[in-house]
Amino acid sequence: MTAQLHSIEILRPNRIEFGSGAIASVARYAAERGFVRPLVVADAFNAARVDRLGLAGEIAVFGEVKPEPDLPNLEAALARASEARPDVVIGFGGGSAMDLAKLVAVLPGSGQTLKDVVGPEKVLGRAVGLIQVPTTAGTGSEGGTRALVTDPETQNKLAVQSRFMLADLAAVDPDLTMTVPPAVTAATGVDAMAHCVEAFTSRKAHPIIDLYALEGVRLVGRFLARAVADGSDGEARAGLALASLYGGFCLGPVNTTAGHAVAYPLGARHHIAHGLACALIFPHTLAFNAQASAEKTAAVIDALGARPTTDPAGVFEAAYGFCERLGVEMRLSALGVPESDFETMATEAHGIRRLLDNNPRDMSRDDILAIYRRAA
Amino acid sequence: MTAQLHSIEILRPNRIEFGSGAIASVARYAAERGFVRPLVVADAFNAARVDRLGLAGEIAVFGEVKPEPDLPNLEAALARASEARPDVVIGFGGGSAMDLAKLVAVLPGSGQTLKDVVGPEKVLGRAVGLIQVPTTAGTGSEGGTRALVTDPETQNKLAVQSRFMLADLAAVDPDLTMTVPPAVTAATGVDAMAHCVEAFTSRKAHPIIDLYALEGVRLVGRFLARAVADGSDGEARAGLALASLYGGFCLGPVNTTAGHAVAYPLGARHHIAHGLACALIFPHTLAFNAQASAEKTAAVIDALGARPTTDPAGVFEAAYGFCERLGVEMRLSALGVPESDFETMATEAHGIRRLLDNNPRDMSRDDILAIYRRAA
Repeated sequence: MTAQLHSIEILRPNRIEFGSGAIASVARYAAERGFVRPLVVADAFNAARVDRLGLAGEIAVFGEVKPEPDLPNLEAALARASEARPDVVIGFGGGSAMDLAKLVAVLPGSGQTLKDVVGPEKVLGRAVGLIQVPTTAGTGSEGGTRALVTDPETQNKLAVQSRFMLADLAAVDPDLTMTVPPAVTAATGVDAMAHCVEAFTSRKAHPIIDLYALEGVRLVGRFLARAVADGSDGEARAGLALASLYGGFCLGPVNTTAGHAVAYPLGARHHIAHGLACALIFPHTLAFNAQASAEKTAAVIDALGARPTTDPAGVFEAAYGFCERLGVEMRLSALGVPESDFETMATEAHGIRRLLDNNPRDMSRDDILAIYRRAA
Repeated sequence: MTAQLHSIEILRPNRIEFGSGAIASVARYAAERGFVRPLVVADAFNAARVDRLGLAGEIAVFGEVKPEPDLPNLEAALARASEARPDVVIGFGGGSAMDLAKLVAVLPGSGQTLKDVVGPEKVLGRAVGLIQVPTTAGTGSEGGTRALVTDPETQNKLAVQSRFMLADLAAVDPDLTMTVPPAVTAATGVDAMAHCVEAFTSRKAHPIIDLYALEGVRLVGRFLARAVADGSDGEARAGLALASLYGGFCLGPVNTTAGHAVAYPLGARHHIAHGLACALIFPHTLAFNAQASAEKTAAVIDALGARPTTDPAGVFEAAYGFCERLGVEMRLSALGVPESDFETMATEAHGIRRLLDNNPRDMSRDDILAIYRRAA
């Protein structure tokens, strides 16, 4: 702990059940609270295994959550909620499902639309229960207060943040992530680490959050390669589920910086999965920030198991090598992103001030362009 | 992280406001939730500064919380609650005030008496809000689910644990601890550290809790001497307030071991303040456990700023020296505990199986007796 312990608000789910078998806590909690009309918000894969939740009685399911959900996807989920009139909403999937579940828990019957609640703390309240059950280890959305929805007109991410979107229960069961394929495991694992690293090196960094951030990086450094090599490695899956939760803890009071800002256009404009986009960009922004955040960058490299350094070239090599060895595709060209779009992407990324303003080093539009070119 | 990530339930206040000025969150939160009939549960000192809470309207106060509260003290607080019929209970003080506030929040109108709820999860529910405002840095009661009340007949601690006793809001404002005198600062600081150390080395230790435990010890190692030397050192007070909160996090899912068990008879039979009793015993149990928990003991000694060792004599010297340099009275004789009572004390301590059974090394009644003799 080196920085000052300035004032901070920490919001947490009242109850977090962590570990193999934690999914059983969902039905237990629902019974305890007397919930009888659950609505599960899930992608198609998880909608097909909704029985794993072990809920009694009739269960309503919205099973059409899309990756990087957009406004029409949210509208469809809200329509399903209008029919089902749930007393508890259960997010069951990755960040997309959990983010939509948050909004489905607060918007119906509130008189508020999504546009009314974009920004911090615009949501007026929540009348139903909210349970989050992550099935990937990446976003950490189960522990946080944010939801992102893409505006199809502008391709911008609309960010809603509200204390009312905090889950009553987060059931973090690493067994649910066993079926995640190696490439997705790798990309989402780096995404979890990116949340930790960016919060750790943010201008808004706080010692209370640093504790989770550094431990999250350590967990990814220790367990991600194992889980990629053997998806059924329970210890590695548990370590990554925890790293993801810790990454989520980093998002609330501190949040990400340049890495996510530079990665967003890859998802919004080229439909590259969020985790993959973050993994591809991560070494570039870490190296860019290396001198501005020397001590912490060295700690990150150390936590990843490489020799600590603050030299930008050495930092880049260590971080790039970490991602490459996991099999992450690190070239924009191989993902179908044309160089002709770099200028527009750089302008878009540079406009995400809510993230870039907290980067430890000022990053110009040209700096962003140079990163895309280097990653071409 | 070396141990296995086995299943664990983490219970946390939804909202923790930490830092200088955090006390302002109490009135803000009360207004947000629409609370209009607060009952403040406090010791006499804090009852006299209840205006610091900044609450509007009429405020009921129970201002007679005693150190190590007993059943009659709880009954008096419950009687006050019956008159005041609060919609929110606010614990304002050290562990004694916060523990009584927990019980005052759940017992009135429930049909349950204290004897009904002793043990884990016997409480049926809570109908009013609960806010905790610690004014010492030691017990960490603001972040936990436990309350201890002394049975005057047996001098035993009755331990109640319930998820319903978890605060809705914990407002941890280090400014409130500025007036704590040096001797109390020292003893309560070591108590906070003892929570961390005992959980860290417990047979029930868990990597998720170890993170808080080791950081708590580091914070005490870094800041306690500073706060004892200069009570107005805001950075040191903040560090200790955080260490205390982290110590509280250690109590829920893991809890203390031999240190607290051996210390309890000092409080129950000889009315030695809890923090002082724990500080006096701490070096003895840490040294006793040194070989059974070698790696972690070395980490504790390192976090306290001494040269890491696992040799029991070296461990004792480092821990004893740490407490002694803080001015803690380390001799039972100087505190008026007669050697003639050691046998009875050892029998009582040895009977606290809920703690001793999790000690990393079996501790016999004779082992406890030897500790009292060594500390005579």
